[in-house]
Amino acid sequence: MLFHVRMDVDIPHGVDATGLIAAEKARALELQRAGVWRHLWRIVGRYSNISVFDVGSGDELHTLLSSLPLYPFMRIEVTALATHPSDLAAQP
Amino acid sequence: MLFHVRMDVDIPHGVDATGLIAAEKARALELQRAGVWRHLWRIVGRYSNISVFDVGSGDELHTLLSSLPLYPFMRIEVTALATHPSDLAAQP
Amino acid sequence: MLFHVRMDVDIPHGVDATGLIAAEKARALELQRAGVWRHLWRIVGRYSNISVFDVGSGDELHTLLSSLPLYPFMRIEVTALATHPSDLAAQP
Amino acid sequence: MLFHVRMDVDIPHGVDATGLIAAEKARALELQRAGVWRHLWRIVGRYSNISVFDVGSGDELHTLLSSLPLYPFMRIEVTALATHPSDLAAQP
Amino acid sequence: MLFHVRMDVDIPHGVDATGLIAAEKARALELQRAGVWRHLWRIVGRYSNISVFDVGSGDELHTLLSSLPLYPFMRIEVTALATHPSDLAAQP
Amino acid sequence: MLFHVRMDVDIPHGVDATGLIAAEKARALELQRAGVWRHLWRIVGRYSNISVFDVGSGDELHTLLSSLPLYPFMRIEVTALATHPSDLAAQP
Amino acid sequence: MLFHVRMDVDIPHGVDATGLIAAEKARALELQRAGVWRHLWRIVGRYSNISVFDVGSGDELHTLLSSLPLYPFMRIEVTALATHPSDLAAQP
Amino acid sequence: MLFHVRMDVDIPHGVDATGLIAAEKARALELQRAGVWRHLWRIVGRYSNISVFDVGSGDELHTLLSSLPLYPFMRIEVTALATHPSDLAAQP
Amino acid sequence: MLFHVRMDVDIPHGVDATGLIAAEKARALELQRAGVWRHLWRIVGRYSNISVFDVGSGDELHTLLSSLPLYPFMRIEVTALATHPSDLAAQP
Amino acid sequence: MLFHVRMDVDIPHGVDATGLIAAEKARALELQRAGVWRHLWRIVGRYSNISVFDVGSGDELHTLLSSLPLYPFMRIEVTALATHPSDLAAQP
Repeated sequence: MLFHVRMDVDIPHGVDATGLIAAEKARALELQRAGVWRHLWRIVGRYSNISVFDVGSGDELHTLLSSLPLYPFMRIEVTALATHPSDLAAQP
Repeated sequence: MLFHVRMDVDIPHGVDATGLIAAEKARALELQRAGVWRHLWRIVGRYSNISVFDVGSGDELHTLLSSLPLYPFMRIEVTALATHPSDLAAQP
Repeated sequence: MLFHVRMDVDIPHGVDATGLIAAEKARALELQRAGVWRHLWRIVGRYSNISVFDVGSGDELHTLLSSLPLYPFMRIEVTALATHPSDLAAQP
Repeated sequence: MLFHVRMDVDIPHGVDATGLIAAEKARALELQRAGVWRHLWRIVGRYSNISVFDVGSGDELHTLLSSLPLYPFMRIEVTALATHPSDLAAQP
Repeated sequence: MLFHVRMDVDIPHGVDATGLIAAEKARALELQRAGVWRHLWRIVGRYSNISVFDVGSGDELHTLLSSLPLYPFMRIEVTALATHPSDLAAQP
Repeated sequence: MLFHVRMDVDIPHGVDATGLIAAEKARALELQRAGVWRHLWRIVGRYSNISVFDVGSGDELHTLLSSLPLYPFMRIEVTALATHPSDLAAQP
Repeated sequence: MLFHVRMDVDIPHGVDATGLIAAEKARALELQRAGVWRHLWRIVGRYSNISVFDVGSGDELHTLLSSLPLYPFMRIEVTALATHPSDLAAQP
Repeated sequence: MLFHVRMDVDIPHGVDATGLIAAEKARALELQRAGVWRHLWRIVGRYSNISVFDVGSGDELHTLLSSLPLYPFMRIEVTALATHPSDLAAQP
Repeated sequence: MLFHVRMDVDIPHGVDATGLIAAEKARALELQRAGVWRHLWRIVGRYSNISVFDVGSGDELHTLLSSLPLYPFMRIEVTALATHPSDLAAQP
Repeated sequence: MLFHVRMDVDIPHGVDATGLIAAEKARALELQRAGVWRHLWRIVGRYSNISVFDVGSGDELHTLLSSLPLYPFMRIEVTALATHPSDLAAQP
């Protein structure tokens, strides 16, 4: 099932997160290749992204999110999605 | 370019919007077929959707949104998107 | 999977919702018996409840919520839950 | 009586809370075994939980919460609950 | 146990609430005489009050509040109270 | 006249406030004995209190509050109160 | 003592408030002449004012405000003021 | 001097504002020709605009805004502007 | 023209602002003597003030505010004022 | 296309940003000369600006904003603009 996820990153001044950022990118690419992290967009002007995940359960989603390298520096907002009755792909 | 759009519908009690809702669906399908309305999801438990539009300009997006049949009953929040550096499709 | 759901009911002044309220109660009991609506509490001083649902997907939850008799008069907030590592029932 | 409790944990960068986290878990298990901490769920994507406590008074609840090992790093929101008239267990 | 209760009254324009207001006052006096409604203050400039109730449970408080004559026109916020360690009356 | 006062205490991590907390308690007891600090309750789950002060003026209240030992670490919200027309003690 | 008062007026569409507005103005002038309503400014772009009242108590202020002709259509926010230590008029 | 003005229009369902909208447009054009209404943009997806006015005083601005034909249906937020030290036109 | 200004001071723990506070007071007195800083009140219970300034432009106001000794530690909210039609001093 | 951008700068106490501020100004002037940064105003009383950018896409805007020297210390809010039907320059 699909979840809409917004992540806002806030790295405290003076923390060198270069390694974490590289690890975060590698992990994001890996999860996209696995088909779990379905969409990933940058919000213009923010160190934030809007994403859509396709997972089997809330447990799976929490495990994925909380193991992201930048997780300690992120504020995450999760919204459960459902199929929209006007979604073209869902028409009979 | 891409815009993230959230629409919350609030039809006043006593207004019969059956026709508008049918017209809204027809228009949503048409815009999806045209490739402009790229994603359309329902928010669980709400008369709301989260969408992604691919348009050439803010003018074009406003023209599309303000001509939706349910527009008079919607509160719309638009967020400009950019390519995320970790987006798989954007890797060199 | 589990979802935390808060429902705030707001029936416009002058609307007779007696029938809807009875139907809502019948439906709530039915869904509790089916094991889908796992918990249901009243918030003290409010025409609101806090509930926990156990469903297979976001689609299933939206179908359940949007078919509740009082749905047109409710504002619903859904929060996805995961197993807590300190949950007694989840200990190995 | 029942209280709905949300706890958001925010440990300042640089603080080693390993010992506190272990103590928190031990205490949470103990209070669940005692029947006081009735439910404990993780909010997906957050270092937060939603809980339900069954205590004899507000004094007892405050004593329990304020003695949790992670209490100095938590923001807690308490909501008083009542029996819902549609609660299956409360039907005559 | 004690609960802090704020009630904001909002009677729709055109509704004659004279009878309800008189009944509300009678009920408020009755509950104060019974020792349940311990304090009752007006917020300056608002059709609102701040109160303290002394009840045996959340169920009892919800029953009291939801049976107030003006309840359909009130927004109520309940806060659970505990004995303060610096409360003069609580010193050993 | 009466003022409703909410105080939220937030002591920065690493600050030893033991002495200030003891002084705060002594001062709170003194002001209660003097009849100025009329009520003092703990909010369950918070390092916060809800109080009622009986003072002659806003100047007097500000002098009292700003001289509290924990004042530099408190966020204070003051609400002016008036006699409620349904207050039992105010009936003719 | 002084209170800062903000009043936001919201007259429902279709209500003829001409008489109330004239009465409100007459009352405002009267209270200014009496020295009670010390300052009265319009907020640019709003049907709102910011005022300063000089009254003997919260009871007196509530009586004044709640008897204003437009009171049923106003949202009022009261803030208690004290002498500022840098106020020129308060220097020794 | 310059003021940033945001206007959100909300015409109640059932009110025919055709004449007001035409009059609003005529007035907006007139004020732009006069050099007072310096900028006027639509917010994408909203019945709202963001404007910049160049007026001699707050009184003049309030007179202009409150005489707009749609003023009774607008919520207006005014922000005072100053010359930015990095403004190209303000460089010596 | 008049502006309503609210200033909230927040000096980080550990910063010695004694000198700045004295300089702030001297500057506040100077601006009051010059007739620019027309009113200055303390908000009860807060390290905040509510002020009214009489200046020729937004540029002048920003220059005044941004040169206050405590400016780096203040959050400032400016509201443009206009003459109120019921202001006693503005009657013909 | 046009975007309305608000930037709020917050430099942590103790950080010397003199060099960054000079670089920010140089970059702002350069982008104004290039016609990309169309308007730049200071908000009175704040270390904030309101700007209008004219760019070809959200990607271009994000690249511009995120490369500003003060970007790590800014909170940026972007609003997509469209031509207003009453804009004088847009009349046929």
